[in-house]
Amino acid sequence: MSTTDWSLPETDVFDQIRAALDDDADAVLATVIDVEGSAYRRPGAKMILRPDGSGAGSITAGCLEDEVRALAAEVLADGDPRVETWDLTGEDDVWGLGVGCNGVITVLLEPLGDSYRPVVEARTDGAPIGVATVVGDESGADRALGSRAYYDGNDFSAGAADGALSDALAELEPAMATLYESGKAETVAVETDGGTVEVFLEGVRPPPELVVFGSGPDVAPVVELAKLVDFRVTVASFRGGKAGAERFPRADEVVSSSPADVSDLREWDGDTYAVVMTHNFLDDRIALEELLETPVPYVGLMGPHDRFEEMREDMADDGRTLTEDERERIYTPIGLSLGGDSPYQIGYSIVAELLAVANDRTPKHLSRRAGPIHDRVDVDANADTDANADADASTE
Amino acid sequence: MSTTDWSLPETDVFDQIRAALDDDADAVLATVIDVEGSAYRRPGAKMILRPDGSGAGSITAGCLEDEVRALAAEVLADGDPRVETWDLTGEDDVWGLGVGCNGVITVLLEPLGDSYRPVVEARTDGAPIGVATVVGDESGADRALGSRAYYDGNDFSAGAADGALSDALAELEPAMATLYESGKAETVAVETDGGTVEVFLEGVRPPPELVVFGSGPDVAPVVELAKLVDFRVTVASFRGGKAGAERFPRADEVVSSSPADVSDLREWDGDTYAVVMTHNFLDDRIALEELLETPVPYVGLMGPHDRFEEMREDMADDGRTLTEDERERIYTPIGLSLGGDSPYQIGYSIVAELLAVANDRTPKHLSRRAGPIHDRVDVDANADTDANADADASTE
Repeated sequence: MSTTDWSLPETDVFDQIRAALDDDADAVLATVIDVEGSAYRRPGAKMILRPDGSGAGSITAGCLEDEVRALAAEVLADGDPRVETWDLTGEDDVWGLGVGCNGVITVLLEPLGDSYRPVVEARTDGAPIGVATVVGDESGADRALGSRAYYDGNDFSAGAADGALSDALAELEPAMATLYESGKAETVAVETDGGTVEVFLEGVRPPPELVVFGSGPDVAPVVELAKLVDFRVTVASFRGGKAGAERFPRADEVVSSSPADVSDLREWDGDTYAVVMTHNFLDDRIALEELLETPVPYVGLMGPHDRFEEMREDMADDGRTLTEDERERIYTPIGLSLGGDSPYQIGYSIVAELLAVANDRTPKHLSRRAGPIHDRVDVDANADTDANADADASTE
Repeated sequence: MSTTDWSLPETDVFDQIRAALDDDADAVLATVIDVEGSAYRRPGAKMILRPDGSGAGSITAGCLEDEVRALAAEVLADGDPRVETWDLTGEDDVWGLGVGCNGVITVLLEPLGDSYRPVVEARTDGAPIGVATVVGDESGADRALGSRAYYDGNDFSAGAADGALSDALAELEPAMATLYESGKAETVAVETDGGTVEVFLEGVRPPPELVVFGSGPDVAPVVELAKLVDFRVTVASFRGGKAGAERFPRADEVVSSSPADVSDLREWDGDTYAVVMTHNFLDDRIALEELLETPVPYVGLMGPHDRFEEMREDMADDGRTLTEDERERIYTPIGLSLGGDSPYQIGYSIVAELLAVANDRTPKHLSRRAGPIHDRVDVDANADTDANADADASTE
């Protein structure tokens, strides 16, 4: 019986990796570095596996976890990283009674060590980072496997990198820059003087931030659901009335604020999403106006359409007219139209909308649209790339 | 500090009501019976409140829960049901710093007793039921308040009903029939020989059923999320391989089956939804074909579009062509396009689709469509009604 905590939010997986590093504990890090055809997880999906067989995270829909666990024991024993490829497209598997997962999946297994520390520290501290990892070296320099360089958005710092990797960094920069922005990952081949080197380029971004304004009981389901799909969640309540971290145990942070101080509450950026649900008309209006002064791409406002129209009229009476750009950032009534009126159903519709906006998706049935499920990444080490390409957008 | 478990799924609230009845415990049942304007919960939303101040369920977004708790103590003390109306549309509240919830909300508070037992037993046993409750009697016969009759889809059984209610039942039948079908609720006024009687008509339906075929780790997030939004969930795994209730502790039921036995596995009806995610091509295909023999409105199939096309070709080779109606019941790739590829994100997109289909909604942004958030119910005791009217459908 596996004791892998398979379906943890990515943030929790990173927390466990960091804990293992901090404790100097023996562990293996398994990372999907390449996928051909359809697979459940994309490149960059990762697991941590411990000597006792326990672990966290997922690399497939359960098709390979047992095999990876067995290999992890070998990696722990001999201390060397290795790259393994599973071809799950064979007829016996796909058409018959075999494991039945599709695609060709390549996984890097490595003893968890300090070379991954900059990545996990950046992710858990809330900063983006890029990392380039040698996953194949035709020059025969096996010692290069697993060696790394890091990318900060402008440059590679390659202090720890092996020679084979150092030679390739300049060529890798355009692709790395794109993946750094998108938070996606891809393995690319690059020619060096010593031959072809395969490098796994991984853009690692912190989770999107959600700030919920409100302190009513309807806040809790939104927090719980948003955490499950990997937002970092702050609850901000006004006047401290009913606030208190104990009421929102799943929130990363609970702060007390006032409507007029919203724009100064924190650093607001394009990856921060705001939900306004104080149920107080004036508080909501002031918070809304404050949020529009920030670069947040999404301000969800709880309440019916009529209420927002009254708010708009009030604002207009005070000489504050919304621009078209501002109007497009306001989502009210909040949420996707999924039906249902229970607290969890309402929270579900709100978080579904947050996911769609954060991922730049138009929320339709996947079965009723054209194109692949996952975003396609088409990276060429020698060219500018379009890692943000969203199959969805092209069908709109 | 409130100890109300405010955001419980409706099924859990009914479970707690049933437990209180079974234990013959003192408790108050509070039910929203009328809403004017916009409110967080609709008629039929309910709470159970106990003498120690604890409770479960919600009737507003936290605006009235404290007041309702205070009133519940009075109801427990004097033993009489009462109807209270809160007008939250006053200027002080809406524009100022008051409670800030909108609308006029009317709530029935009653000592929990055997008159509600048929309702809660039907709901928890998985059967629909209608109930008519006197909530106002202009004839002055106060004793009638809270008296009930039950509706089984064909007739009222009014054994326990007071005279004022018995006189009205024939007139109430068309409205009750509509609400019984839709699972919605409304208060209607009906004229009797003794004067006008106000009757709360409540259609109570069991939660929709979800059957998930599969036993991989990706099943668990689907089960967990579907439970939160109030599906009754069965996990069906084939060949018993990795089955076992302990792997899916949140499922209501875990059964072992085989693909060819799917249609005989249970009674399938139009309120049962199926998700096929065995990751085995042949198992998926057989399960799919079996499910199409049942009246289920939704068969979600995990996997990419190409995989389904191969499956279709295989079926065609065997002389099995899908009709257009069958094709429309198959949702593959499964889920709404919300982005994200973590296990919870994938599960989230699947359950979002289940909600939308079960509630007959087109999954778009509420802010980008016309019409009210909630379905409108327009009930007239003397006319056929359209309780299923979906504001969404009219904008398609």
